[in-house]
This record gives sequence, structure tokens and C-alpha cells, in this order.
Amino acid sequence: MHITRRLARFVVESEFEHIPEAARREAVRSLVNWIGCAVGGASHEAVEHALAALADYGALPQATVLGRRERLDMLHAALVNGISSHVYDFDDTYLRTLLHPSVPVASALLALAERRKISGRDFLHAFIIGVEIESRIANAIYPNHNADWYITGTAGPFGAAAAVGKILGLDEQQMIWALGIAATEGAGLRQMAGTMAKSLVHGRAGQNGLYAALLAAQGFTSSEHGLEGPRGFAMVLGRGSDVRQVAEGLGETYEITLNSYKPYACGVVAHPVIDGCIRLRAQHGLKAGDIRRIVLTVHPQALKLTGIKSPASGLESKWSIYHSAAVALINGTAGEHEYSDASVLDPAVAALRGRVEAVADEEMRQDEARVSITLADGRVFDCHVEHAVGSVDLPMSDAAIDAKFTGLAKGILPAEQIRCLIGLCWSVTALEDVAEISRASVPP
Amino acid sequence: MHITRRLARFVVESEFEHIPEAARREAVRSLVNWIGCAVGGASHEAVEHALAALADYGALPQATVLGRRERLDMLHAALVNGISSHVYDFDDTYLRTLLHPSVPVASALLALAERRKISGRDFLHAFIIGVEIESRIANAIYPNHNADWYITGTAGPFGAAAAVGKILGLDEQQMIWALGIAATEGAGLRQMAGTMAKSLVHGRAGQNGLYAALLAAQGFTSSEHGLEGPRGFAMVLGRGSDVRQVAEGLGETYEITLNSYKPYACGVVAHPVIDGCIRLRAQHGLKAGDIRRIVLTVHPQALKLTGIKSPASGLESKWSIYHSAAVALINGTAGEHEYSDASVLDPAVAALRGRVEAVADEEMRQDEARVSITLADGRVFDCHVEHAVGSVDLPMSDAAIDAKFTGLAKGILPAEQIRCLIGLCWSVTALEDVAEISRASVPP
Repeated sequence: MHITRRLARFVVESEFEHIPEAARREAVRSLVNWIGCAVGGASHEAVEHALAALADYGALPQATVLGRRERLDMLHAALVNGISSHVYDFDDTYLRTLLHPSVPVASALLALAERRKISGRDFLHAFIIGVEIESRIANAIYPNHNADWYITGTAGPFGAAAAVGKILGLDEQQMIWALGIAATEGAGLRQMAGTMAKSLVHGRAGQNGLYAALLAAQGFTSSEHGLEGPRGFAMVLGRGSDVRQVAEGLGETYEITLNSYKPYACGVVAHPVIDGCIRLRAQHGLKAGDIRRIVLTVHPQALKLTGIKSPASGLESKWSIYHSAAVALINGTAGEHEYSDASVLDPAVAALRGRVEAVADEEMRQDEARVSITLADGRVFDCHVEHAVGSVDLPMSDAAIDAKFTGLAKGILPAEQIRCLIGLCWSVTALEDVAEISRASVPP
Repeated sequence: MHITRRLARFVVESEFEHIPEAARREAVRSLVNWIGCAVGGASHEAVEHALAALADYGALPQATVLGRRERLDMLHAALVNGISSHVYDFDDTYLRTLLHPSVPVASALLALAERRKISGRDFLHAFIIGVEIESRIANAIYPNHNADWYITGTAGPFGAAAAVGKILGLDEQQMIWALGIAATEGAGLRQMAGTMAKSLVHGRAGQNGLYAALLAAQGFTSSEHGLEGPRGFAMVLGRGSDVRQVAEGLGETYEITLNSYKPYACGVVAHPVIDGCIRLRAQHGLKAGDIRRIVLTVHPQALKLTGIKSPASGLESKWSIYHSAAVALINGTAGEHEYSDASVLDPAVAALRGRVEAVADEEMRQDEARVSITLADGRVFDCHVEHAVGSVDLPMSDAAIDAKFTGLAKGILPAEQIRCLIGLCWSVTALEDVAEISRASVPP
């Protein structure tokens, strides 16, 4: 059987009862983390601009923009919630491929939930299935694909289409069409790193996947071999990737269990370095003025993706391992405030950034790093980070995810509302109507 | 100066006065042809499905769906008008790259025109500039790109973004962002040939380009090197294409003057064969039952793109040179009715289709073909088509474009309204408000 059909059949036939507890639990953690990111990002200027560009555009107030008072039509709510949840680069990461699993699937499902009642249980089921499909497709095209494209922009629409299609009750033929439409809409160039267009790519993935499923439900056709065809997704965007493995063991394992959450608001490959800097700062009471030289030894991918020496904006600084090391040493943390325009322009940060050197080492794992700091007085402090906080081997605790959420939502929502919203997210499985979460995110 | 900036500056600085008459004239012909296609395609089931999928979605009735009574918000009107105008594969073609120039640019501009008054003159100017930008980018990535992608889905957003940006009065920086956003949204796999998803790809190009310009106008940033950057459009989607030539002679020549219009509702590479069949049928009074064998000798691209032997649907039959030859011999024409599901299933058509053979010949030009027909009685008739009707060397006359429009719009609009709408299109330059055209396309 062709791969697109096998995936479609799996989505159609999946039952919540058969999904293991570990997958459900990780899906809830993913949701909590993602809602926190969306609410936190809601006041970012990228979101302001995206809404302003839609202002003269005639949307009925149909679905919530998370963390804001504006409402948009369902398709554009999915787009803008995708933008806000990704704009800080603080959302979840599937480390094997650097896919951001939640943004396409959650933004599509939550937008739909305000037009069509979805129970928390059905939501969670569809969410897990959507993440499964996009992650497996991402695995197949990684690493051929990643140097050029944002894999969430290309594999993500499959996840959103599968999840929404599951809720809409598509049959196998319709699901094949939905996946085919998703295949032809994959887009997003890495050239956009450090600009608002990166978050647009991530928002489009959910919006396009949502419409793909809505179209297929009406009988709008696509190729039945969107994934495996000779001019299909795997051949073209996957550059000849072999997709035969995509369906192996479907329903036996769930990729959501490998999801990870970021303690820092920047490219995940810079995280082990930040851990090392924070540790050395705390252990030795380091002060920026005393530091002469910082040497980072990292996985080559870290230098490729976060190699910007002198970032020009907050968004660009997320792709600078130099900036990340500097702010971690100065502030002892690396949240969204450390990656603001103001932080980039801070003379103290700029001075310390200039003293950071980075070396790639093929022997390093992606979640590993060494940090070596030489002080003005000649003392040298070293730190070897085996696994970054937030990696699969050292996951963020539920409490840490809560604290991250609270920090992000502060200034957007009152403290009590934040607690209530977090509570709703953790108890998603019990909700009769998952749109309660969206409504609870609107500022008073 | 980087290419993206050079293009942006050209768009910003262009003045209507400097555009030669030949370009203006061809732009008007393009518009007439395109409106006819959009009105004609308005009742296609792909459009019905696309509208049904949006029905529960909360759009304010802001802009016209050409040839229909429904109204949608501006962004989705651009999408659906893009779908309808392309669904018959009857719209214009820029033969050098097989780009369909009008669909992204015209659908974006006309949708905008119902939110913001645009004079016919400004419309025509923006249209010509948009076509210029997308055609030049298409030239740069052709042919590396075309085997896998629909070039209108990838280069088209640049054209729509440039045209809309011109109307919105973007400055150079904003125009660079608009082109950058367009760069990262390019998508559309050739795997979708023969399905409704092909027209979706073409509709998205205009919708995405429109929003790209609206975003950039608000300060939404993108890479400033969307086209030429190391992970930009030319490197990734153009597979390392050299874009240095893109801006050469900008403003001296206009690619719109090379636009062509289809007399037949199928892939343009099949057109010379259809000409030959129609000619032989008329010359010798051929009847399908008397024909034993048909041999087509064509450019290799014709076999690659229209090589489907036994199409399963009307949309698929547009990619069958065998079907095209059969209907041309049976009906003496190859309009949208010859590529319907009914025509595909017609036993007489199927029988004749099975008697067609096709051979690729490297020596042939793309608009050239030989047709050789052997009758049951042993007689053989040959025809050599030097240039297909509708090619640059044998363009459709204004009258032929009018007749095509009338044929397409029949059944959608009353005869008098069709005449009035055609008249409005031809006199576009004199219109104070180009939205008059859209309004005049709505059935009574």
C-alpha cells in the first residue's frame, strides 16, 4: 500500500483508547507549554503587524487570538496564533529533526474548536495523531531538507491536516486528499532566520493544514501520492528521501513522547552553552567586567544555525550563540527579555558578546557543550554540559513548565487568570469544550 | 546592489508614463483573457468545493468572487478567483517558462480594488510591473525548477506582492520585505497535475503575495535577501540558479509583451498537435470511425507534461496529448467541454484516444508538431504545424480572445452582460474604479 494511503488509514482508524498514557501525558505538557508561548508572544510586534495587516480585511470575529482581545475568522486565527506561539522561538522542539510539533497542530485545532465543539479528549487524540504524522514525515526528510527549509513549514501542514481531518471525521479517500493538499503547500526558507517572516512560516503551516482538511471534506481533490509520488513531497522537498519507513510501527510508538521544551527563548542548539554559562556564573559568582575570554565548544550544527556574531535585532539574536552566552553570563537566564531589541543594543551585552569565541567539534552531541571562561586575573573556569536542560535526557519538570508559562504570561494576563488558564490546560482531558482554554486566555 | 533591492527599487520608482504602448496593450489583452477564464471557471466543482470549505468560516462579504453571487473577504476572494481562473488551464502562458502570469497578479489586485479604490490606469501599471517581476524571476530559475514545481506557485507570489506593494505605495525597504515574504511562501508540486490542488496552488500565489505586501506595509520584516541569499529562493527553489541577470535591462523591455493566450483548455505544449488535428479534420472531412492510427511527433516537453495515456477525469485529460488529439479530431475544437469528465468517459473519445501514438523529437520547437493520420482504407494524411495558434509567432487576435471569453461566460452570464463585461475590460485604462469590472461579473 502506498505511504500516503497508509498514513491516511492510520489517522482514520486511530482510537484514543489505544494511545498509551505516556503519549497522553506528553501531549498535555506540550499543550501547556504551547499555550504559554502563544499568550506570551501575543504582544510581540510581529503579531501587532500581522493583525494590523488584517485590520482592513473583513474577518468575522469567529475565533480567539490567544492572549488578546481581537477575534478573527478561524483560518486567520490559526495563522496569528501560529505566529505568536513561535515568535519568541520558545515553543517545543522534536530534537531529532528540529521540528516544532505543536505550532501547526495546536493552532489549527484550537481555531476549529471555536466553530465546532471539540472535547478535550478528542482534541488530545487529534493532537497526538497530528504530531505523529508530521514527525514521521519530518524524520524521513531529515537531514536532506533542513539546511534550506524550516521543517515545520513543510512537514507541519501534514500534521495540521491530519489532526483537523480526524476531528472532521474524514474517510480514507478524503484524508488522502487532505494530506496531498498539505504536501503541495509546504514552504518556508531558512533565509528568513532572525526576521518576523520565520514566525509567519510557522503560522502558515497550521492555517494551510486546516484549510486542506476543510477542502478535502468537501471533495476537493489532490494527488493520491502527495508524499511518495515521483514529483511529490519526499522527492522534491525531501530531495529524494526514502519514505518507505514512514509508516513502520505506526500505532506502536508515539513520537510525542520525545517532545522537548525550551527553558531559553532561542535556537535549541544554543541551549547547552547557556546551561554552562549559567552554571559557571552561579558557581563562581562571575561578573561580566571580570571576564576576558569565553570559549564555547559545540556541535557543528550549533555554529551553523546560531553563528551570527553581531545580531542587529532581538529576533536575530536568537540565532547568535555569542549573544546567548553573553546574556546568560550577565543575567543568569535567557528568557524572552534577553532576546529583545533592547538587550541586543545594551553596551554591556555587546562588549561581552565580542569576547565570545565558538569552536565546532564533530564529537559533541547536539545537546552537549563545553564552556571555558578566562578571567582578567588569569583564572580559568570550565564546565562540561552533558545534556542541556530541556533535552529528552534532562526534561523540564511540570513545575518548570508552569513557571515558564507564568513568566511568559506576566504582563499579558493578571496573575489569577494565569493560574486559572494553566489549570485548564493541565486538565484538558476533562474539558467538554476545549475552546474554554482559548476564551480563558483573553485579557480582561 | 543586491538583486532583491534592485527589483524593489524598480517597482517603487516605476512610472506609468514610461511603459511602452505595446506593453500596455498586451496587459489589456491579458486582462480580457483572464477575466473570461475566471468567469468561465466560476461554476467548476473545484470552486464549489473551495467555497463550501469556506462557508462555515466567517468572512465578511468584502470582495467579489468573479462570475458568482457569493462575496468573500479580500484575501479569500483572491484565492478563489485564482482557483477559478486557472481551473480550466485556459489562462495565459508566458511560454519561455510556462509561467501563468495573470493569475497571481490580477487576482490579488482585483481583490484589493474592492477595499481600496484603484483606477484602471494604476491597475494596469501595477499589473505590468507585477508580471515583470515574476517573469524575470521565473526566467532565472527555469528550467532547473520546472520539473518539480509549478513556477506560478513559486514565482507568482513575487508578482502579486510587487503589484499590490506598488498600489499601497510601499517604500524601498517595505518592498524588499514584501518580496522576501513572497520568497518564503513559494510552493506547489507538479505531483498535483490533473487534480483540483493544481488550481489551489495557483490561487495561493495571489493570496499570499497580497498578504505579503499588506504585512510589509505594516513593518513586518523578512530577510532582505529573499531572492539571492545563501538559503534564499534562487538557491533553494531555483536549485542554485544564478539571479544576477534578473535585473538586467529592467524598464527597457517588458515581459508582458511576450504573453500568450490559449485557444484550447489544456496544457499549452499539446496545442500544436490540436492545431494539426483540427486542420486535417477540416481539410479531409475526417471521421473518427475511419481513422486507424494517429502518430504525433512533438517536443520532448510535450510528452513529459501531457503524457497521460488514459486520463481518469476531466482535469487529468488536460495532461493527455492522446485525449487532446482525439477530441480535436472528433469535435474540431478543444475547449473546456472537451476536457470534462463526460468527454473523458465518452466511448468514442476513449476508442480514438487508444489509436494515438506520440513520439518525442529533440529537433522540434515547443510550439511545433507533426500529425500523421492513417485511415482504415490505407490513405495517410500529414500536417506540419510550424507555430501553434496562440503562440507568440501566431498570436490570438483580439476578436478570437473576445470569442473565447463569450464561449467561457455563456451559461454563467446573460449575453448582454457578457458583452458589457468584455467592453469594460477592453477599456480598463479609462476606468476610475477597476472594481467596476468585478461587480459587472456578478450574475443577475
